[in-house]
Amino acid sequence: MKTAIIGYGVVGSGVYEILKANAGGIARRAGKSIEIKYILDIRDFPDHPESGLFVKDYSVILNDPEVEAVVETMGGVRFAYDYTREALLRGKSVVTSNKELVAEHGHEFFALAREHNCRYLYEASVGGGIPLIRPLARCLAANEIESVAGIINGTTNFILTKMYRENQSFETALKTAQELGYAEKDPSADVEGRDVCRKIAILASLCLGKRVRCEDIPTEGIGSVSVEDVSYAEALGCSVKLIGRAVFKNGRAGVSVEPMLVPKACPLAGVEDVFNAVAVKGNMVGDCMFMGRGAGKLPTASAVVADLIDVAVRGGYSDEFSWEDCGSAVFDPAETESQFFVRVAPAGEKAAAERFPDAELIRGVSDLGFVTDTMSETALKARLAGMDGVVSHMRIYR
Amino acid sequence: MKTAIIGYGVVGSGVYEILKANAGGIARRAGKSIEIKYILDIRDFPDHPESGLFVKDYSVILNDPEVEAVVETMGGVRFAYDYTREALLRGKSVVTSNKELVAEHGHEFFALAREHNCRYLYEASVGGGIPLIRPLARCLAANEIESVAGIINGTTNFILTKMYRENQSFETALKTAQELGYAEKDPSADVEGRDVCRKIAILASLCLGKRVRCEDIPTEGIGSVSVEDVSYAEALGCSVKLIGRAVFKNGRAGVSVEPMLVPKACPLAGVEDVFNAVAVKGNMVGDCMFMGRGAGKLPTASAVVADLIDVAVRGGYSDEFSWEDCGSAVFDPAETESQFFVRVAPAGEKAAAERFPDAELIRGVSDLGFVTDTMSETALKARLAGMDGVVSHMRIYR
Repeated sequence: MKTAIIGYGVVGSGVYEILKANAGGIARRAGKSIEIKYILDIRDFPDHPESGLFVKDYSVILNDPEVEAVVETMGGVRFAYDYTREALLRGKSVVTSNKELVAEHGHEFFALAREHNCRYLYEASVGGGIPLIRPLARCLAANEIESVAGIINGTTNFILTKMYRENQSFETALKTAQELGYAEKDPSADVEGRDVCRKIAILASLCLGKRVRCEDIPTEGIGSVSVEDVSYAEALGCSVKLIGRAVFKNGRAGVSVEPMLVPKACPLAGVEDVFNAVAVKGNMVGDCMFMGRGAGKLPTASAVVADLIDVAVRGGYSDEFSWEDCGSAVFDPAETESQFFVRVAPAGEKAAAERFPDAELIRGVSDLGFVTDTMSETALKARLAGMDGVVSHMRIYR
Repeated sequence: MKTAIIGYGVVGSGVYEILKANAGGIARRAGKSIEIKYILDIRDFPDHPESGLFVKDYSVILNDPEVEAVVETMGGVRFAYDYTREALLRGKSVVTSNKELVAEHGHEFFALAREHNCRYLYEASVGGGIPLIRPLARCLAANEIESVAGIINGTTNFILTKMYRENQSFETALKTAQELGYAEKDPSADVEGRDVCRKIAILASLCLGKRVRCEDIPTEGIGSVSVEDVSYAEALGCSVKLIGRAVFKNGRAGVSVEPMLVPKACPLAGVEDVFNAVAVKGNMVGDCMFMGRGAGKLPTASAVVADLIDVAVRGGYSDEFSWEDCGSAVFDPAETESQFFVRVAPAGEKAAAERFPDAELIRGVSDLGFVTDTMSETALKARLAGMDGVVSHMRIYR
């Protein structure tokens, strides 16, 4: 099978490396060899061992009937959207690591793939190399999925781990992450939760079969998490984790991105550094967890290549990883019940004791906090309305 | 798609329940409804809501051309072997939870399935409801798998957890497990490691594409693990876990079943009670882990039903989960290098200090122990040969 890589950055070059390094095993499992016929990039790579593969004109790839599959590792939406569309229109399958594109336009591409009997696959878009999309769609197919929740951003998990293990402030931990290459110069997409938002939108859409829009997902990052939050967490036997979660009920999803307190007894609490993990609850299988490296050149590229092998094994359209855009598919995640941890300034102690008479107060360095009963966030906000000295509240994962 | 369940025990009745309870979602994902046309069991179930489905004569099922797939949840080899064979000979796909049969005769059934263009699937045979077979074969297809290691027996993991958390002796913990229904009256297959042996044989065979025979796997159970071993483990920052492991090198596998000391930093160490987990190392993806309920009626049945859905989606033969019997495919796992923990009686202290001059001695209640450098078990045994007072040695997982 001939393929073309479009976008020769970190992931694209990883795909090249894997197809070379593991060629024998890949051909055995794919039933045929997978050959790179073109690489498209605006830059020149004169020292590349196969510099003859590079092209700058996409139409060369589109018009070559030998190319059955296109690897889209460009990232971004602007060019990748047109490039993906044009490939699918010609019946060429597209495999991608581009989470933004999948979250925003996946539904259009599935429809095009169906029409032109090819495939649009995106295993690499969530959780890097961790098998997630196939296990959710195929292995747990006997289940109604009740919830999907995960640590799906390595940068923020690294920062939170540093804050917890080494007592670093958010700013210092972010700087460390940048120095190690785990965070970008502009870290806002990670830190503000937009990256997690796209990924949980993909997982929720897949489980539901209906598009969940990023704009329908209340998204909170970790910028407001302080060292004091982390030490409260410790006192409660919890870790602070940035959790993307979708809870399913009556054909709708309550989806959110927010820092949560994860009790240590829960396997997600022990997922540290740049590791990612996703916990799935099925109505028959109960709890499952998938864990591994959620980013990085070769892990991500290995998921892209798994999709390529899938195309080689069966290139024609298949419905199993798709969703449609049916308008709103969500309910307000503030309706999902949990316990919450509430922080109040010393001045609010009396009011807290009055409004939450059963709660035990925990004293921190600068203020105090308590754990509520199980209730919705809507109910919590009503209870807190007008109360003096409320500093913050955080959901407790379960 | 019409199917027949043969063997209406715990898993078989779970399959029935799931096909009823999740019928809508299953039909959507399978592209057609999956209907149970027959249930074969030697027992009578007069109070069953669909008692008309029960038959006692297998030929009714075999001779009904409408039955496309047979669910073999009989267990054991004697009858299940013939029943599976006869179904495949007629081009009926078989899905199973029968690990003994898959480990012993899988290679014959794959060949038959190929010949008669049907399938033999066995996701439920290892790790209950945890997706394992598909992720290994499909999602990690871009990788050369370097090792697979796991906690794949809930009974022994429950016993070891009790010994560790509550300081129970092996005998007491086993009794607790039996009272809770986690261990059978005759617990030997679990406790002596034979159950793990079959499961790791299946995973190793799948990764290798060549049959790994159970008789080629050195198998040690947990009967000799004492409370003192568990407290040494604690002192070393480890947990004692019964690990089935396959390490792959040059087209062969070094496979073993043995209690190991698992460092707490390793995610496998935190897998407690009846939970199962499998860690996979791929040459591109690095470390991944899959965790969940490794046994139980509905989790196991949910994996069987996932296989049924796969048959409904594409019934014809596919090579991806198969292996062949090519004679010996193993190397001696004693050649695999690790650190080891060695226990010696007080009388052996001097000899230990002489033979392992760099090792730091740790004093236990009745004897002492030390951690070796990294070496093969063969080399360790040579170093220990003739040494006074050696009590035991245990491999340290990494």
